[in-house]
Order: sequence, then structure tokens, then C-alpha cells
Amino acid sequence: MKVLGIVAEYNPFHNGHMYHIEESKKLTGCDAVVCVMSGNFIQRGEPAIINKFARTEIALGNGVDLIIELPVPFAVSSAEFFSYGAVSILNNIGIVDCISFGSESGDIISLQKIAEILVSEPQSYKAELKKQLSAGLSFPVCRQRALDKYLKIQNDSNESLSSLLETSNNILALEYLKALSRLNSPIQPYTVKRISNCYNTPQLTGSISSATAIRNSIYKSEIDVSRQALPTLAQQIMDREFSLGRGPNSLYSFEDIILAFLRHATPQELEKIQDVSEGLEYRIKNAADNSGSFDDLLANICTKRYPKTRIQRILISLLAGMKRFDMEQFMACGGPQYARILGFNEIGRQLLSLMKKKSSIPVITKASHYKTSDDSPILRMLEIEARATDTYVLAYKNPAFKKAGQEFTQNIIICR
Amino acid sequence: MKVLGIVAEYNPFHNGHMYHIEESKKLTGCDAVVCVMSGNFIQRGEPAIINKFARTEIALGNGVDLIIELPVPFAVSSAEFFSYGAVSILNNIGIVDCISFGSESGDIISLQKIAEILVSEPQSYKAELKKQLSAGLSFPVCRQRALDKYLKIQNDSNESLSSLLETSNNILALEYLKALSRLNSPIQPYTVKRISNCYNTPQLTGSISSATAIRNSIYKSEIDVSRQALPTLAQQIMDREFSLGRGPNSLYSFEDIILAFLRHATPQELEKIQDVSEGLEYRIKNAADNSGSFDDLLANICTKRYPKTRIQRILISLLAGMKRFDMEQFMACGGPQYARILGFNEIGRQLLSLMKKKSSIPVITKASHYKTSDDSPILRMLEIEARATDTYVLAYKNPAFKKAGQEFTQNIIICR
Repeated sequence: MKVLGIVAEYNPFHNGHMYHIEESKKLTGCDAVVCVMSGNFIQRGEPAIINKFARTEIALGNGVDLIIELPVPFAVSSAEFFSYGAVSILNNIGIVDCISFGSESGDIISLQKIAEILVSEPQSYKAELKKQLSAGLSFPVCRQRALDKYLKIQNDSNESLSSLLETSNNILALEYLKALSRLNSPIQPYTVKRISNCYNTPQLTGSISSATAIRNSIYKSEIDVSRQALPTLAQQIMDREFSLGRGPNSLYSFEDIILAFLRHATPQELEKIQDVSEGLEYRIKNAADNSGSFDDLLANICTKRYPKTRIQRILISLLAGMKRFDMEQFMACGGPQYARILGFNEIGRQLLSLMKKKSSIPVITKASHYKTSDDSPILRMLEIEARATDTYVLAYKNPAFKKAGQEFTQNIIICR
Repeated sequence: MKVLGIVAEYNPFHNGHMYHIEESKKLTGCDAVVCVMSGNFIQRGEPAIINKFARTEIALGNGVDLIIELPVPFAVSSAEFFSYGAVSILNNIGIVDCISFGSESGDIISLQKIAEILVSEPQSYKAELKKQLSAGLSFPVCRQRALDKYLKIQNDSNESLSSLLETSNNILALEYLKALSRLNSPIQPYTVKRISNCYNTPQLTGSISSATAIRNSIYKSEIDVSRQALPTLAQQIMDREFSLGRGPNSLYSFEDIILAFLRHATPQELEKIQDVSEGLEYRIKNAADNSGSFDDLLANICTKRYPKTRIQRILISLLAGMKRFDMEQFMACGGPQYARILGFNEIGRQLLSLMKKKSSIPVITKASHYKTSDDSPILRMLEIEARATDTYVLAYKNPAFKKAGQEFTQNIIICR
């Protein structure tokens, strides 16, 4: 059985995701699909619009056979840690043959060539990067310039290579490739060229629209106009969730909680959060005092140097009680400490049996069994996940679903 | 100039309060009225329905000449600490000749007689109280029974004496008297008999209604039906506040913040709060996990042993960052550390001049002047007040008024 691994957020699952799965199946000739998916909080530092189990149901009905959770410390992290965490799980479960990700370029050879340079960091590239950075420009720009110079020196006439670093999905693709290389993984990489460059486009653009545009229409209670971009099951499950009073969750749901937490926290406590350094803790504290809304808060903190996603990830870390120290500990222990299953179908059940034999990390199907684990990094990772969910559910309108501890009581999704 | 001191919450100011002020003026023949008033949080462990400065405006327009804030650690405390804090301020400012409080009995001689027994605790009374308490009944019941026995032994045939302990305003009156006695204060006590026994009556009862009934009608957006119970200025200022998006604040405004705080707190952190003991911290933690709403939370914590007001005060302490240690420190330093002025009228201005000469505690008219005070109890008391207000304002609907730091920017109210 040839097994394909993919990494996704499905926030929410839309036609573009379906296209990616179908094309990846054709491209790789795989028999089964495993997906590592963000949980209740996503990479750009936001709560997912519906919870991870509802998103699992949708994905299982649309071509994915087994879903594993990307633990929140990695899910709500830089592209580098996000990719490393996800690829590390796909690598460690021992059953994945190939991985497929979207990219603007669609050219795996070129992407791999750049990834190798970025991982090996040849002396002349490194020197150029350092020179560029000292001029005070942003890291992505400097990296692209340094790569450009390095390729010229190498007499590589392919000018388009460094320009690959200009678009977001190529950049993420490079991070997956870097992670595979660092892990010395035997997993074979593939890329599917994106059919629409609408990632981050805020307007709906027909049957393939960006998740951002779809979320915006949902937040404006205009879910109907986004239906054309969603598979039927995604529509149905979102309708069900919203009518139950679970979602749509957004950062605005946590406006007062975030302001209250920040006003109570000391700068010393904030400084312990990943990515808070160089006095950013004081900037955040001042902004929390001088802001009466979430929009004000972001406007008062963000600059070119402190982009919105970085700040939002810091705020989610605060809500989930995650510290820089936690990430350091997890990385020292090799990354994600377990493969926690969110759901599977019949094929997924077979994958699960295989995984249980081959995985080098614990495969968790019942989180409650690990509540009293002796393994402290496992316990700490689950604790952070539980804390994140205990806060996530506070955004629900229906009190019946706002209780804590759901991380340990919710059953995984089994599709027959 | 004969100066009368009163203690109040004015949440909100109503016709019953006006009656109390007018009767007290007649009874004492005073020339001026100083009021010590709770700030943004009140004794039963709730946010005030409108903020302290708006309440100050109303009181100054209805017979009070100068308002001093009861600092939040004392305002949100047991009847004993509440009364001690307020009477201590009235005593320390050095200008108050008499105090007047409402009571069901209206008989100051009887109340003083009981207060003296409760303060001096004669041996036989103390032994009887201990005996009663060992039977497991609540403190108020045991106290009343012990007093009853003690009075019988003393051959005091006045049976009604111990029954004074049955009603809430008498009990509070006794606390004021106890505080005067403990402070060895020269202030002369008076009591005004309540004309209506509607304290805590949830229904409106005409032009004299309980603050509880008035608040309930406002929370139900039925302020019009409570207008008959409110002086015109109270109506006008509440209308203004609500139309500005400031209030009506209630504990429900803090539902998600409280649940989030409790879910993040450790039992060890909760145990540091005043009145959390004997494992109550675990009871609160469990309830926070198993509750999806504020009503659930209270229902899951409260018992006869843990009454609602005690629990609510604990939750407000959490929001204000107050610890048991803070109260111990303040009491070790004599109680409230300063007299912070919230507002005054022309007569109040003269009182203020007098106070500045005679007060044994600092008289604060600009809190920002004390932001860098060297006196650590003063600084800590202001810090708690500021934290409480920074949380209080989060309940406002209008983001323009939700900024922190208002404790140091808001000017005091001067009525001409």
C-alpha cells in the first residue's frame, strides 16, 4: 500500500483542498492518504473557524483516510516549526511513502535545489545573507537577494530560481523540503501546481476561492455566497456546527479575554512566550492598556518588524499557556512527542494498524489514557493542547459546549 | 461645622438613599455630609452597575458634599472588613463628628449594647459561642444563640435584643459600631430606622424600592419601570452612561474572562486569595472546568457552607489580582492607607481643606501623583484599585471607554 502524507489546516475545507488531494493521488499513485492537520488553533495565530473534530469529519468525507493532529505548539508557530512538526510526524509514524504539497511553481526539482542550499548554507551564501541582513531589510528579502547572488556566482543562469522565494506556498514548500532533508527522511516529495493564485485573496473567486475569502464571508454571516467554493459535506457540517452554537470562532471571540490576560500579565511573564524578545513585552503591555478593542490592540503593536501573524501567534500562546521553554524542550526531544489520531475511515483503520507496528512515537487514540503518563514531554504537550481547547470552547455561543476537559472526553471520528 | 459621615454603595442611588440622607441630617443636625463609597466593585462581589465617578455625580447632586472611595480590598470583603475599612477612613480623616446608618431596629442604644458584647467577648459568651459552633451550625445562627444565652444569664429580660441579629441592616450596623469601638473613635453613632423592609426584595415596591429590584429591572432593559424609585439626576446620569456604552455592568459581563482565568489558574494560585481555604480552591477549579456559564459556575461551587456572596467576592479578587497577603498587610498597617477623593461640591471643598489639615492618612485628589510613591502599602492599594478598574472597563460596550489606566487619568468630580 503506497501511502501519501499531506499537511493541512482545512480552515475550512474547500474545493481547492479537494483539487489538491485528487491531483496528489494522481501524481503519486498512492492508495491511501494521511493528513497532519492543525487542531483548534492555526498557523496564522487564530482559532479555527470550527473545531478540529468537525474539520476531521469533513476531510474524511473528501478523500483523506486518516487525520493526525499537529500539536498546538507546532501548529501555532513559524512556517519553519510548523513544517518541521508536521513532516516529523509523517516521518516518525513509519508508513508514509510520499508527501505532496501545493506550490505556485509546481517544479519540485527547482524547489529541492533551493531547499538544499538553504539547509547546507554554503559559506558564500551565508556571508552574503549576513551582509544583506546588516542593511536592515526583512529576512525574506535578504534571503532572496543572498540566494540570487549565490546562484549567479555558481554560474547558474536560471534567474527564476531565487524568485521562487517570492510566493507564500513556494516558501512553505521549501520548509517541507528543508524538514525532510534535516530529518534525513526517505519520504518522496511531490508538488501540485496551484490552479489559482488566490491564497490570501480576500474576495470570493468562484468555485476555487481562498480560505480567507470563505472565512470572511462566513464571519459576515454570508455563508451562502461561499457555498459554491465548498464541498457539500463542508457546507452541511458547518451549518450543523453553527446551528449548535459552536462557531464560527474568530480572534474577536477572545477580545476581552486577551485584553484581560495582557493587563494582568507582567512584562516578565510575557517575555517567556516564544518570539517575545527585544522589549516586545513592553510594547504589548502598553498596547493592551491603550486599546479598547482587538483591532486597536493589533494596530498598536504591529509594525513591519512585528507583523500581525507573529503577534497573533504570541496571543494564542498566551491563551494556551505555551512558553518558549516548552518549544525548546519539545525540540530537544525531537519535535512532536506523539501522533494523536483525530479520525479515520476504513482505509485509515488499516493505516492505523500498520502505524501501531511501525511508528517510533506513541500513537494516541484516547488522550485520556495519557493523562497520567510518566513521560513528561508527552504530558506537557497534551496539557498545552487541553489548555488551548479549554479556552477555544469559551468562544462558543452555546453554554452546553463551553465546558473544559473536552480534550479528554471527545471521541475520535470514525467514518464507516 | 458639624460633619456627618455615612457609608454607602449607591448601586444605584435611589429614593431610599435620599430618605436616609435627609433623616440623618435631621437626626444629627449636621452641616455637611461625607460619604465613604464602594468603587467599581461592591460588597456582595459584583461590579457596580455604573462606574464610581458617575455614582459620585449622582450622590453629590442628592445631598452628599464629599465622596471618598472605599478601596476595593475593603469594599469587596466581609461585612466586618467592609465596615472596618469605611469607619477607619471616617475616623482617620479627622473631621467627622457623627455617623448615621440605616437599621431595621432604629434603636441605637440596643445596638450599642450588643456591639459592646461582641467586641469585648465576655468569657461566658465566648464559651457558649464555641459550644454552638461545634454543633456545626452557621456562624450567624450560633452567634445569635450564644448572645441569647448570655443575655439570659445576665438577667436581661429584653428578649428582642438577640433578635436584632436576624436582619441584614442591623448586622451591618453592629459592624459599624464594633469598628468605632475597636478604633476607640470619638465619632457619635446614630441610626435611621428603615421605612421599608425591602432590602434584597427582588420586586419593585413603589417609590422606595431595593437596589436589587432596581438593578434587576435595568438588567432586563426595563429601566422605565424603576424610574419612580430613582431621583431625577440618577435617571439622567444612568441614561447618559448607558447611551455612551458604559454599563449596565454585571458579573455576566465577565463570564468568559472569569472562566478563562479560573481554567488557567492553578489551585495553588487560587489558594492565595482571601477566603479560599480548606480545599475550596479545588472545588472552584473543578467547577470552572465543568461549567459553561456563570450561572453554572456558581451553582457548581455554592453550598450553605460556601454562600454566593463569598464566592463572588473571591472571583472579584481574582479579577483585581488581590491576595489574602494584601489584606493582611493592609490590616497590619491599620486598614485603608489613604482617603481618595472621588468628588465634592462647594461645602465639600471646605471639608477638603479641613481634612488636609487634620487627616492622619494621605488625602489623594490625583491618583497619578502617587503612582511612584515610596510607600509600598499605598502603592499596592492603588495598584489593586487600578487593576480592578482596568478589568471593570472591559465590560463596557463602547471600545472608546475600554482602555486601561483610567484610574490615573480620570479627573475627580467637582460640582459647583
